[in-house]
Amino acid sequence: MSQIRVTVWGENVHEKKHKVVADIYPKGMHTAIADALAQDAEIKPRTATLDQPEHGLTEKILAETDVLTWWGHAAHGEVKDEIVDRVQRRVLEGMGLIVLHSGHHAKVFKRLMGTTCDLKWREAGERERLWVCNPGHPIAQGIGECLELPNTEMYGEPFGIPTPDENVFISWFEGGEVFRSGCTWKRGNGKIFYFRPGHETYPIYHNAGVQQVLRNAVKWCRPEGGKYAAGCPNIPIEKAKEKIKVTTKVTVH
Amino acid sequence: MSQIRVTVWGENVHEKKHKVVADIYPKGMHTAIADALAQDAEIKPRTATLDQPEHGLTEKILAETDVLTWWGHAAHGEVKDEIVDRVQRRVLEGMGLIVLHSGHHAKVFKRLMGTTCDLKWREAGERERLWVCNPGHPIAQGIGECLELPNTEMYGEPFGIPTPDENVFISWFEGGEVFRSGCTWKRGNGKIFYFRPGHETYPIYHNAGVQQVLRNAVKWCRPEGGKYAAGCPNIPIEKAKEKIKVTTKVTVH
Amino acid sequence: MSQIRVTVWGENVHEKKHKVVADIYPKGMHTAIADALAQDAEIKPRTATLDQPEHGLTEKILAETDVLTWWGHAAHGEVKDEIVDRVQRRVLEGMGLIVLHSGHHAKVFKRLMGTTCDLKWREAGERERLWVCNPGHPIAQGIGECLELPNTEMYGEPFGIPTPDENVFISWFEGGEVFRSGCTWKRGNGKIFYFRPGHETYPIYHNAGVQQVLRNAVKWCRPEGGKYAAGCPNIPIEKAKEKIKVTTKVTVH
Amino acid sequence: MSQIRVTVWGENVHEKKHKVVADIYPKGMHTAIADALAQDAEIKPRTATLDQPEHGLTEKILAETDVLTWWGHAAHGEVKDEIVDRVQRRVLEGMGLIVLHSGHHAKVFKRLMGTTCDLKWREAGERERLWVCNPGHPIAQGIGECLELPNTEMYGEPFGIPTPDENVFISWFEGGEVFRSGCTWKRGNGKIFYFRPGHETYPIYHNAGVQQVLRNAVKWCRPEGGKYAAGCPNIPIEKAKEKIKVTTKVTVH
Repeated sequence: MSQIRVTVWGENVHEKKHKVVADIYPKGMHTAIADALAQDAEIKPRTATLDQPEHGLTEKILAETDVLTWWGHAAHGEVKDEIVDRVQRRVLEGMGLIVLHSGHHAKVFKRLMGTTCDLKWREAGERERLWVCNPGHPIAQGIGECLELPNTEMYGEPFGIPTPDENVFISWFEGGEVFRSGCTWKRGNGKIFYFRPGHETYPIYHNAGVQQVLRNAVKWCRPEGGKYAAGCPNIPIEKAKEKIKVTTKVTVH
Repeated sequence: MSQIRVTVWGENVHEKKHKVVADIYPKGMHTAIADALAQDAEIKPRTATLDQPEHGLTEKILAETDVLTWWGHAAHGEVKDEIVDRVQRRVLEGMGLIVLHSGHHAKVFKRLMGTTCDLKWREAGERERLWVCNPGHPIAQGIGECLELPNTEMYGEPFGIPTPDENVFISWFEGGEVFRSGCTWKRGNGKIFYFRPGHETYPIYHNAGVQQVLRNAVKWCRPEGGKYAAGCPNIPIEKAKEKIKVTTKVTVH
Repeated sequence: MSQIRVTVWGENVHEKKHKVVADIYPKGMHTAIADALAQDAEIKPRTATLDQPEHGLTEKILAETDVLTWWGHAAHGEVKDEIVDRVQRRVLEGMGLIVLHSGHHAKVFKRLMGTTCDLKWREAGERERLWVCNPGHPIAQGIGECLELPNTEMYGEPFGIPTPDENVFISWFEGGEVFRSGCTWKRGNGKIFYFRPGHETYPIYHNAGVQQVLRNAVKWCRPEGGKYAAGCPNIPIEKAKEKIKVTTKVTVH
Repeated sequence: MSQIRVTVWGENVHEKKHKVVADIYPKGMHTAIADALAQDAEIKPRTATLDQPEHGLTEKILAETDVLTWWGHAAHGEVKDEIVDRVQRRVLEGMGLIVLHSGHHAKVFKRLMGTTCDLKWREAGERERLWVCNPGHPIAQGIGECLELPNTEMYGEPFGIPTPDENVFISWFEGGEVFRSGCTWKRGNGKIFYFRPGHETYPIYHNAGVQQVLRNAVKWCRPEGGKYAAGCPNIPIEKAKEKIKVTTKVTVH
């Protein structure tokens, strides 16, 4: 089996503006994520960022991407609609998409969900425990019954999403909230995974368990089957599978 | 129980441009649909059209709408994004939405589905038979095991939608195709029903069975429970349900 | 609208064997639940228990039941398979079913789910907080953003169920676990709601919030539409909707 | 990647009783299916039949089975409940299950679905066309937009199943009916695929397209991730992840 080509997309704004973030991720969060993925020989990551031409997501790059990971927060509004259209189309065709943390409000995630993707939040550096709801799920392998993070931003229910196909993780927070932290959906022929942890001021992407989940998720959402090509073809009467006894036909187009 | 306030939205373009459509629907398709709904004393319909200010869908009107029905075809692109945002928000809050026929490509339907909503099609005036998949479903009451339409436009699979919560109807076509013709989804607290029949050049909305389905669907997707108010509230540390032992807290916003 | 006829089924074993339970529920948990439901004039509850003939669930009683609530724990194995068949059939026809707490292991719940319905558990009298995932959902009305119970038995993930249609509540536990505490499914034409709280040694069914959820749930899962009558009818060739050109026909039955 | 170990289960009753079936499948339908699977070097099939000890499905054989295919019709009732329990458990653990044609009424399918799995039927040797609803789906690869079978038994809606996760195929029948002919579900960590064609008096399993679907389906439902081990573990207070302030604790077991 050939390597899974992953494009790790990073907004890369906080890392340049805030020393605390730069100290944790000197080469950017996207690089930390790509490095974590590269630990698996089956995965071949590259990075792309907001400030690149076409946000680093040209038609060519997306065509050569099996799985796209998405981290954004401060600059969701700067992502061009044309690129959002393009990413959505690729997901429907079959490209995997992993949406990380504050990416819950990314244009492309809201586009694919059709809902607000709103949630409650708090920054208190509190403890989080992600419980595995399906211990057999590929994304949860190697994690045990839960994944504990000592300091995180809290996200709380209600989370404004369509019911996931599967809840892989649900989080418990020290401050008393819960959250559907690992959710899967299928849209078109593309698999989508939302994974909650990832606040920029904590070293979340240096956590071994988080890195394991990311590698698992990449493998889970690699393209499967063929490319779903959308379109609205007209089927002429003479090409119908069965003979139609035409009694009336009026076209007004 | 109070009446269900329905706004029947019609694009009202074909009816003004094409004699064949005007002959079938002299007062517009929206009026024919509203009249069919009004046969049930529980339902109180009004109409709105594309050419009205704000397409007839002002904040006030939508706030007073329990269920919105949507028929559009030739002018999907002319519907303002601001109105699409507004309708989407109301659906997520709990307003019912019934999308009719070529409304599969309406901006608001594609927005709520997150997919292409593409399909195959053919105009041959062929026979269609909508089979009931759940004979107990409220939307299928009074229809029997199937609903037959002598002359329709064909829509065929693949239909580019997320898996419906329930398939109420699946169509058989004379020319050999099939289609998921009656589908339900829930988004936010709003119920959505897509109903396939409704091509403008056939008297579909004068058909007693189709009218029965529309009345049933209005009742099925009336708001239930409360208004889902979205938003991303910050929960301050001192308002947390449980005491948090703050060990680290860094804010970069 | 006529009253909703509810049969509150109680195993009624603990109440007779353990003083601590009898002290909390002197007339049995089923009676406490029925009394809570009766506070709503729209609801007309009756009770049935394991020790009655046919467990109090005769064909006649079930035929006159709109919604059945089920609490069992110590004696799941004593419920006759014939009665389980009967209850399952009625749910598929359209009767609502509310499964409470340890009813997760009731034969009829496992039958309808098709899975183990297993879970983790602990008895420590700990604090539980049920968060509302869809604030607009009928079952969550009047509860606010969460429902807090000072002392409960803990149930923890993984919960061996098929993905619910909707997660109405997710629980946070003092001891660090989470649980999908309020889940909905539809099977046949019947609506099913699982609601976690209800351990017999705590006065859970005397809690005003829990009582509110029970009343809401009864209304939500009342029968809707018609009675889904199952069966495997043979459709003779001469009754086919379309003429079949019979080229081959071999019957071996 | 190692080979996928498939156990092809066949009731093998019709083949021995009816000449017309024996003529089509001289070595039994199970052998025809196994031979079709063996054309793919990734798949390693073996067979098992009703008349073998434990129906050929011992603990050992099931433990070594990645995917089980199931064809039964005349003797569903003869399958021992103990074996049904065992197969269900293995599916929940992660074994794939492919249910064929009249297997819709197999005990194990009804067990996993929780519903009647009833349907309409007619034997007229009519034409069937299975349309692909998701052209990118792994199970539909190599089929094109539809799969046509010249002579089949008809199955018609309503099909008494829970809503599938995905409809891969929907059938059109010459006699005017439709049917959800290719459906997927996940239960526990096991993937389930129901595939409609397969009536014993037609050479369905000799059809190249049907054979392709079977091979695709085996690959799609091979185990993924880890083995989901069910169970209801008690978590002692002293093993809780968070310290519980025990204020009350009463055990009545």
